[in-house]
Amino acid sequence: MSSVKNIQITSVRESGVEVKPDLLAIEEPLEIRIGFGLANDRQQKSISVTMRTPGHDFELAVGFLFTEGIIHSFDQIESIKYCEDAGKQDEKENVVRVELKPDVQLDFEKLQRHFYTSSSCGVCGKTSIDSVKVNCTSIQGDLKVSPEIIHTLPDALRKAQAVFEYTGGLHASALFDTKGNLIILREDVGRHNALDKVIGAMLFKKETPLSDYILLVSGRASFELVQKAAVAGISVLAAVGAPSSLAVQLARETGITLLGFVRDKRFNIYCGDHRIQ
Amino acid sequence: MSSVKNIQITSVRESGVEVKPDLLAIEEPLEIRIGFGLANDRQQKSISVTMRTPGHDFELAVGFLFTEGIIHSFDQIESIKYCEDAGKQDEKENVVRVELKPDVQLDFEKLQRHFYTSSSCGVCGKTSIDSVKVNCTSIQGDLKVSPEIIHTLPDALRKAQAVFEYTGGLHASALFDTKGNLIILREDVGRHNALDKVIGAMLFKKETPLSDYILLVSGRASFELVQKAAVAGISVLAAVGAPSSLAVQLARETGITLLGFVRDKRFNIYCGDHRIQ
Repeated sequence: MSSVKNIQITSVRESGVEVKPDLLAIEEPLEIRIGFGLANDRQQKSISVTMRTPGHDFELAVGFLFTEGIIHSFDQIESIKYCEDAGKQDEKENVVRVELKPDVQLDFEKLQRHFYTSSSCGVCGKTSIDSVKVNCTSIQGDLKVSPEIIHTLPDALRKAQAVFEYTGGLHASALFDTKGNLIILREDVGRHNALDKVIGAMLFKKETPLSDYILLVSGRASFELVQKAAVAGISVLAAVGAPSSLAVQLARETGITLLGFVRDKRFNIYCGDHRIQ
Repeated sequence: MSSVKNIQITSVRESGVEVKPDLLAIEEPLEIRIGFGLANDRQQKSISVTMRTPGHDFELAVGFLFTEGIIHSFDQIESIKYCEDAGKQDEKENVVRVELKPDVQLDFEKLQRHFYTSSSCGVCGKTSIDSVKVNCTSIQGDLKVSPEIIHTLPDALRKAQAVFEYTGGLHASALFDTKGNLIILREDVGRHNALDKVIGAMLFKKETPLSDYILLVSGRASFELVQKAAVAGISVLAAVGAPSSLAVQLARETGITLLGFVRDKRFNIYCGDHRIQ
């Protein structure tokens, strides 16, 4: 499937009205299913439906399973494919089935609790943080980066964002090395999907944990984005927009350097100053 | 709980580095529970956990239950309160319990399918649209609005956005009448929450369906936002950012006028031109 769609729009300006062609970012549901269990007792389970922009679906599925703590390494996967029995062609490409190796143990109670509801013993930021910390990779290495390099990242991101250029409708996530070289970029209507695609791509390449890289996200830094970055062992998370309170708290507790408002040759450091030279 | 939090940050600019106080938008989980059933067989069920900015929590809970099709009118609610048995003070304010009247019938199979997974018979935009259309209010009245009024809305929104001003970290949703008067505005770290708060507030006032109003949202228009607007019977949805493909498709099928890139005295009409004079 394509990532953009042609449409006719009516453009209204003070100078006049014009009917013209335009491009939209595509949004379609993706269902992620897993196959698991011993050869003589194979089962399947639907894990999530997310609204995403088609493209890099296998990376998205693998990244999601990893950052949500369902799998812990790429080696636990046997195969990945679009689901053959999911009906029409359009629907087939909206269902990805990830076969896990027979010896992978899943904690279904945890799965259910995580996705559908919380435990009955209370919900607060602290609880959320504790449950995330269990899955986090401890950040390794001693990455340091200069402010001059950080200043260059937003421009590099924007220049590489192919689809956004046309539609204005996509979030981006990208990894850079400490010299400011772009390693990988992914776009999606959902910012969490863009990040899962990046992390999934690096899992495919067997290049995790990602402690040698700087992650730049095009929007704000939420709890969920810091969570995913922490699970992947990312050292520095830089956001073009503002972070939330819980994003800062989680970054502190997991040892991530969190930067916000990274644009126009300035940024704020919310925690982890020691990695900025 | 407050909507903002004080913090010390390090501000880095080319002109120098400064440690200074700053404000963050608060993000905390909110669990929504419902109580239901006959007096002698009362049960409770956890419906959702969403990451939200505290404030207007009851409106958020009611708006969510309504826009997700779990309740169909405000009259189905008996009472709303923070959950007394949810542990510590912080946690209490993160759990809202909505008591439904004894005669309210719930479709649990549908609930489970909607929130946790999809039906096994395939997932595509079309399926999503069909399942949403069931709950939509048909849009009533013959609202018309002029481009001159539309041009004024983004400034009015920004001026009324209290918390964003300090944190830069919040999405906003607002209703305007056809003269451009602001009726209600709500802010949240999650754009779907900001809209649920607006719709919930109007349900409290018994002012739904909302076919006489124009809804302005601060970011992009996703499938989810159009869905919620459609359920509430909103005629015109205007977004400061871009719409997605599925947002346009759903707006067309439910008869909503969808406007995008509403800023700098211009906007695009994606469907429903007849309401723009």
